[in-house]
This record gives sequence, structure tokens and C-alpha cells, in this order.
Amino acid sequence: MFFVNFLVSLWFLTFILDFQVIYEIEMKKGNININIIFRVLGSLLFIEAFFLLISLIVAVIYNEDDIFAFIYSIAIALSVGFLSRVFTNASKKDIGKREGFIIVSFVWIIFSFVGSLPFILSGYIPNLTDAFFETISGFTTTGSSILTDIESLPHGILFWRSIIQWMGGMGIIVLSLAILPILGIGGMQLFAAEVPGPVPDKLHPRIKETAKRLWLIYVFFTIAEVILLLLGGMNLFDAINHSFTTMATGGYSTKQDSIAYWDSPYIHYVIIIFMIIAGTNFTLAYFALKFKFRKVFRNEEFRYYIGFILFFSIIISLIIYYNTSTGFEKSFRDSLFQVVSLMTTTGFATVDYMKWIPFTIVLLFIVMFFGSSAGSTGGGIKTMRIVLLMKNSLAEFKRLIHPQAVVQVRFNNQSVKPQIIYNILAFVVFYIVIFVMGTILMAAMGLDLDSAMGSVIATLGNIGPGIGSVGPVENFSQIPDLGKWLLSFLMLVGRLELFTVLILLSPSFWRK
Amino acid sequence: MFFVNFLVSLWFLTFILDFQVIYEIEMKKGNININIIFRVLGSLLFIEAFFLLISLIVAVIYNEDDIFAFIYSIAIALSVGFLSRVFTNASKKDIGKREGFIIVSFVWIIFSFVGSLPFILSGYIPNLTDAFFETISGFTTTGSSILTDIESLPHGILFWRSIIQWMGGMGIIVLSLAILPILGIGGMQLFAAEVPGPVPDKLHPRIKETAKRLWLIYVFFTIAEVILLLLGGMNLFDAINHSFTTMATGGYSTKQDSIAYWDSPYIHYVIIIFMIIAGTNFTLAYFALKFKFRKVFRNEEFRYYIGFILFFSIIISLIIYYNTSTGFEKSFRDSLFQVVSLMTTTGFATVDYMKWIPFTIVLLFIVMFFGSSAGSTGGGIKTMRIVLLMKNSLAEFKRLIHPQAVVQVRFNNQSVKPQIIYNILAFVVFYIVIFVMGTILMAAMGLDLDSAMGSVIATLGNIGPGIGSVGPVENFSQIPDLGKWLLSFLMLVGRLELFTVLILLSPSFWRK
Repeated sequence: MFFVNFLVSLWFLTFILDFQVIYEIEMKKGNININIIFRVLGSLLFIEAFFLLISLIVAVIYNEDDIFAFIYSIAIALSVGFLSRVFTNASKKDIGKREGFIIVSFVWIIFSFVGSLPFILSGYIPNLTDAFFETISGFTTTGSSILTDIESLPHGILFWRSIIQWMGGMGIIVLSLAILPILGIGGMQLFAAEVPGPVPDKLHPRIKETAKRLWLIYVFFTIAEVILLLLGGMNLFDAINHSFTTMATGGYSTKQDSIAYWDSPYIHYVIIIFMIIAGTNFTLAYFALKFKFRKVFRNEEFRYYIGFILFFSIIISLIIYYNTSTGFEKSFRDSLFQVVSLMTTTGFATVDYMKWIPFTIVLLFIVMFFGSSAGSTGGGIKTMRIVLLMKNSLAEFKRLIHPQAVVQVRFNNQSVKPQIIYNILAFVVFYIVIFVMGTILMAAMGLDLDSAMGSVIATLGNIGPGIGSVGPVENFSQIPDLGKWLLSFLMLVGRLELFTVLILLSPSFWRK
Repeated sequence: MFFVNFLVSLWFLTFILDFQVIYEIEMKKGNININIIFRVLGSLLFIEAFFLLISLIVAVIYNEDDIFAFIYSIAIALSVGFLSRVFTNASKKDIGKREGFIIVSFVWIIFSFVGSLPFILSGYIPNLTDAFFETISGFTTTGSSILTDIESLPHGILFWRSIIQWMGGMGIIVLSLAILPILGIGGMQLFAAEVPGPVPDKLHPRIKETAKRLWLIYVFFTIAEVILLLLGGMNLFDAINHSFTTMATGGYSTKQDSIAYWDSPYIHYVIIIFMIIAGTNFTLAYFALKFKFRKVFRNEEFRYYIGFILFFSIIISLIIYYNTSTGFEKSFRDSLFQVVSLMTTTGFATVDYMKWIPFTIVLLFIVMFFGSSAGSTGGGIKTMRIVLLMKNSLAEFKRLIHPQAVVQVRFNNQSVKPQIIYNILAFVVFYIVIFVMGTILMAAMGLDLDSAMGSVIATLGNIGPGIGSVGPVENFSQIPDLGKWLLSFLMLVGRLELFTVLILLSPSFWRK
């Protein structure tokens, strides 16, 4: 055991040294300020250490065999964070656009490596590939798991698994509402938070203030869900874990059967409601909590988001009601739960939808591409992009018939700039290209077409379960190692709106 | 039998009367000149009557029981054509853009209705749905068939089936190189024929002259293929039929087993070469026949087209060679044949690729989306659009890093206008939306996901065979009637570059 720990510590040291080498090269090459990148990433590790500490407390309370794994992990996280601060010297003013891209991408990778330590050190997921897959699946709020017997894990590890998702959810709210719009990715300009900050001109305080307010809402809803789940008879541990993973639209459960473990309509409906909330733009939640409900219901993305959910739920519930002996309420609840779970990209399950008739599977597969609202913790293409795509398609006909006329696409009663429409078109084409290339590669590793497509959309869309052999009652343990790394990469790509990660692969990014 | 004929004739009369009603309405509504539409469509029916006459001659030569079916069909085609000329009075100068869209879409529908008469009247495909499906599948050079025992058909009917495809091929060459670019659809401006016409300023003589030259090339290659197939030991009837359907990238065969019927490498390679030619822009063929080979090889679309074929063929042949006991030459030939057949959207088969390992099926499924070159008889998204999409994706990264820089996409050493790039992005998104909606509808009719996707891409891409239950050794007979009509519609939508047909469904098209 000590040997393993020693090896891991060594590996982290070489990891840092590697970075120093890259740092030297890049400094000469392109004037990217690696100093500040290290400094910021290091500082962020203290946050991860803090959450590890909470998990340690849980482990201590239950007094199981995962305590030392957490202690070691905290020590490593703190030392790496400390070292990266000691050896760097830079001011936050040095963060340019390119440094922003690098930090935003690498924070997930580094958090996932450090976050996989408790799994590895405790011996519950001894394999690095599996542990990394499970952790990045958590941080990106995907929820795809390689675990085949979740109930056998100690409480500390289970708690860590859930809080990873909750942390990831926090990260993505700030990213998608405050940071990515500034980087100008895939029409994200449209999604910029409307939450009024104190100093709107200056970037840094604005992000900080926005983050603070949004996190308060996030915490508020999490606590509300815990209370409601407790009222439904769930125990405190399960209630906290599921509230974490619901609000993060993550979908990790403490039970192998996911939510199907509880045969309670009340619990199902509570989780449905909170999945819907988690899949909503958090700016709207802010307005709702300020009782500005008109502002919420006037929001076009929200209306379409609810519309899509109802549309697919009703169709599927009718199909199930008329094709099986399931009662009406249960048909509706099962359909609504699965549709909400997949559209918000949470990934909880109350039934095995792979056992439904092919048509419903096809519909759910389509739902997986839709995704939640922009500015939520959910993934996918996002309702706003889908709606703008639909509107632009109609406008395209008008343009074809009247080439001279200026046909504008409107959203929330404002006309959308052609540049943003173009960005969104490019985003969707990219999404599909990545989906296709991912499918080819997964098929090359031996998966059949359905499973290859299913595993790719499940991870690229940050959903969790897919179709085929990675359906809701299956898991990702049988995927070959190379496939797990590819899917981990896709989770990150999907989580960061594609371009943030892919831009790092472009040589012109590194040239000045 | 007489009764059936009587009914069909009656149906055609009501068909015409219906049009007169629509005509009255539309005249008042939007000033669309229905007169000229009827006149042009009527005149074109004389062409179809001419090809029916050729098939009649074949039927008479073989003296089988399909002779009267052709005589009746010719009579109906001529009378409908004659009537539409008698009752209309308009000059060709009255063809505006909107009339152009209507004529271009409706000519395929009317040709398919008239063209299905020999099948119905001869009793070999008594059902209207099946006969229409088989005929529009022919005219759009798709090649999806509902027939389960092709060899049992008389020679006249078989010949009609093949010449329908040849006619469709002729139609699409003129459309895609001379007419659609004028209508400005999905970046088609780029594909305009470079074949020098005598009066480049005036539209009508230019189309006529371009058509004449391109058709000469088409006939030349068809005759060349007939001769080469005869040399390979194929009989004259089969050689003519297969040359017709190769050059049209149609894929109808006179044998149930398609090209697998001939176990001759020579025949396979001859057909591969002519499929490749048929999938090439006919403007390039024009240059090749004028010995301007440099102009051909400098063409970027051609280079990528050959590149994609080699890329996929080599990968698949290596997979087959290393995973089965098939010899090297046969592995290569089978892979090349299937890749060329699907990429050019011909649809011939020498093996049942559904029996290959999942990975090769996934690769072939991807190939189905690529399609042939623009300005060929092939369907699909088209190499040029795929290449411009790839190039634009790379440019997108540069734009993201350097928002101020003007990053241009170049093709054939010329910079492509942003408007055309936008058109192509919109086209591809539309293609995928139609594919997805088609898949949902086919799944709603009971097909499983693979078969639903397979049947939609096979028809939308004008390929013929798909994957799943509509694979290369299967057929479309088991698809429900409603599904056959939907797939027929998709063939037309795919054949006419989406917008030409879909624009007719837009209300704003009909308003002035």
C-alpha cells in the first residue's frame, strides 16, 4: 500500500516537472504566460483540498477503510498547490485570452487527476484509467460510471463521488455564465449572465460577484432538495448525495439501480422538479428567487425548454400507455423522468429504457442531443442553439425566395446578429463531426454501431448512460482502456463547449 | 385488367383537373405563372414517351406479356402532354425563379407517376405505392427496390427500370450544372458548369448548349461501358442495363444478387471505374475528353473525392484482410467496390457488407453521408461541401484565436465568399435535421434504430441499399406503405439538394 502511495506521489512530481519543461518551451515560443497558469491552477487545488476534507470528515464519521486515502489525497493536493504557488510569481492581470483557454481546460484535467487519488489509494478503483474516467465523469457532471457494485463502496468514497459532481456543477455555472462568453465561443455571447454585478466594467470583480450570487442559488436549491427528499423517507446520506448530483445534472447515485431503487412517486417527482431546475439557466433561477416570475416565463429559451420536455414526455408516455400494461400515471412518470433526465443530461434512471420499443429508444436518442438550457449545469447542444437553428432554418427559406430582403432571426424579442448565427451553425456542425469521429473510433475498438453512438453521445453530451451496451442499467466497465480515455476526452470537450478544448490542439493557438 | 386501366386513366384526369383548381387559386394569390409550368411539364412528358417507346421496342423484341402495358403508358403520357399544351398558352420567357422551383420539383413527381404505369398496367407491380416507390427510386437514381424476385420480370420492364435511371441521371446533370446554380441553392453557385457555351449571357441557349455537350459525354461513357462489359462476357441486355444504371449512379440491376451475380474481377473493376467516372463532376469529364488532364487533376474536389475513396477502401480492406480468410486482392476489390458504390451513391453490391464486422459497417455508414462530386449523377452531401466544411472548421479556430484577422477559406485556389460558406453550413445542418426527422418517423413505423437510419440515408442520399433490415441483400418491400411514401419524398428532397423541394412547403413561397 505504501509502495503504491509512493509511486503516485512520484508520478505527481514528474507531472509537475513535465510542466516546467513545457513551460520553458512555451515561454520561448509564444509568450504565453505559463507562470500565471500554474499559479491559478495551483490556487484552485486548495478548493479541491477543501472538498476532500469534507469527504474525509464523512469517512471519519462512518469510520471505514477509506480514511487514509483521503488524508494522503489532501496532502498531495495541498503540496502540489503549494509548490505551484512557491515557484511562480505573477499577477492576475497577466491572464490573457490564451491563458484563459489553457486554464479553463486544464483545471478539469488536473482536478480529475487529483480527484482520482482517493479511488486509487483506497483500492476501490485501483486502476488509473478507471479512476480517472470515474473522476472526470464526475467533474464534467457526466455521470458515466465504470462501477459494477456501487453499494459495496464506503460512505466517504460515495460522498466524494457525489461532491465531485457538485463541484463540477459550480464550476460550469461560472464558466458558462461569466467566462466562456468573454472567450466568445459558439454563440456563448448570448448566454452571458444578466445578473447585475457591482462593477460591470471590470472583469475580475464582476466574475467574482456573479459567481457568489449564482452559487448561493445553487446551494439554496441543493438544501431545498435535501429537505424534500428527507420528507419522502430517504435517509440523510442518500438525500445529500442525490441532491448534489441532481443539482449538478450529474447523475451519480449511491445505488446500483439509480433512482429505481426507490419505488416512490413522491421521490421521483421531487427529483424530476429539481432536474428541471438544474437544467434551467441559473440567471432565471436568480430572477425567480427575487419573485420576478414574468421575466422567467417571458424567456424564450425557458419556454422552449419546457415545451421540448412536455412534447417528448407526452409522446413517449402515450406510446408506453398504449403498448404496455403500465398504468397511466406510471407511464407518464416514467416517460417524464427519463426525458427530463436525458434532456437535462443528468442521467438518473427509474426504468431500463433499452427494454422499451425501438421508437421510444430513437426518441430518447434524439433527446440526448438537445441538452439543457445554456447557463445551467447541464450539457448537450443546448436548447438555445437548437431553437436558433430552427428559427434560422425557417429564415433561410425566406432568404432563398427573397434574396434581396434582410431576414432577421429574433430571440427574446431581439434580433440576433448574423455572426452569432454563424457561430451556432459552426458549433452544431462541429458537434456532429466530433460525434461521428468519436463513433468511428469507438466502433474501431469493437463496439457495435448503437453502443458506439450511445457511448459517444452519453459522454460528449455529459449525460451518463447512453444506448446499446452502455444503456441505463449497464456501465462503462467493459469499454477498452483506450476507449475510456477517448470518452474522458469527449466529456471534457462537451463540457467546455467544444472550442475551448479543441483550440488547444490547433498549432496556430501556440504561435503568436 | 381493362378496369384497372380505366381507373388509372380516370385518376390521371382528376389529377389534371386538380391542377386546374390549384392553378386558379394560385393565379389570384401570388402571380405564379401556372400556364408556363403546365406547358413545360407537358412538353417534358414527350421525352418520357420517347423513352417508353424504346422500352416498347425491347418488349416487342423479346415478345413478352408487357407489350400492351407500354402501349397504354405511351398513350397516356402523350395525351397528358398533349392536353397540357393545348390548354395553355405561354412563352418560355415567363419562367421566373419561382416557376423554376415548381417545374424542377414537379417534373420528377409527374415523371414518376407516368413512369409507374408500365409496372402497374403489366401487373408486375400492381400496387400504386410500390410502383411509385420503384419509379421515383429510379428517376432520382436512388436504386432502392421493393422487388423480391427481379429475374422473374420480363425484359421490357427490366429495361424500363434501367432506362428510368439513365433518364434521371441525364436530368440531374443538367439540373445541377446549369439550373440549380441559378436558383442559388446550398452553395451550388460554386458548382456551375465551366463548359463554355456559345452565348454565355443568355440563360436559355446556354442551358441548352451545356446540356447537349454534357449529354454527349454521358452517352459516350455509357457506350464505352457497354463495350467493356461485353468484353468481360456479360450478355448485351445485361451490359446495356448495367451501363445505364452505373452511369446514372442508380444501381438497379437485372439480377436479384446485383453485381455479385458475376464472379468476375474484370467485371467488378470495370464497374468500379465507371462508378468513379459517374461520381465525378461532368465538367471534368468534358475536360478529360478534350485531353486537358491537368485541369482535371488540379481540381480540388476531384483530388479529395479520389482521396476519400482510397482512404476508406484501404482501411476497410486491411480490416477484412486481417480479420477474415479472404485473400488480399479480393479483400481490396470487395472494399473498393462497396466504398465506391456507396460513396458515388450507386448502390451496387458484390458482397453483403452487413455480414462484415461492426466497425466496417460504421465506416460504410459514414461513407453514405459523403456522397459523390457536385455536378455528377451521384447524391449525398457531396465531396465539395464536406471539404469546405473541413476547411472552414480549421479556419474557425484561427478566427477564434485572432478575432480581428480576416481568415478566408480557399478552394481551387480561389477564396470562397463567406455567404457560400454560410449556405453550405445551413445545407449540412438541414441535411442532418431531415435525416433525424426521417429516422424518427421511420422508427415510429416500427423500424429499429439501425434500419430507420439506414432506410433514411439510403433514400435521402440517393444510394439505394442502407444498413439494418434494408441492407444490400435486403429490399424495401417490408416497409409499411406510409413509410414508402415518406422515403419516396426523401429521395426527391435529396435529389434536388433539399431546398428546391422544401421551399415549396414554405407559405412565404406562395405569397408575392
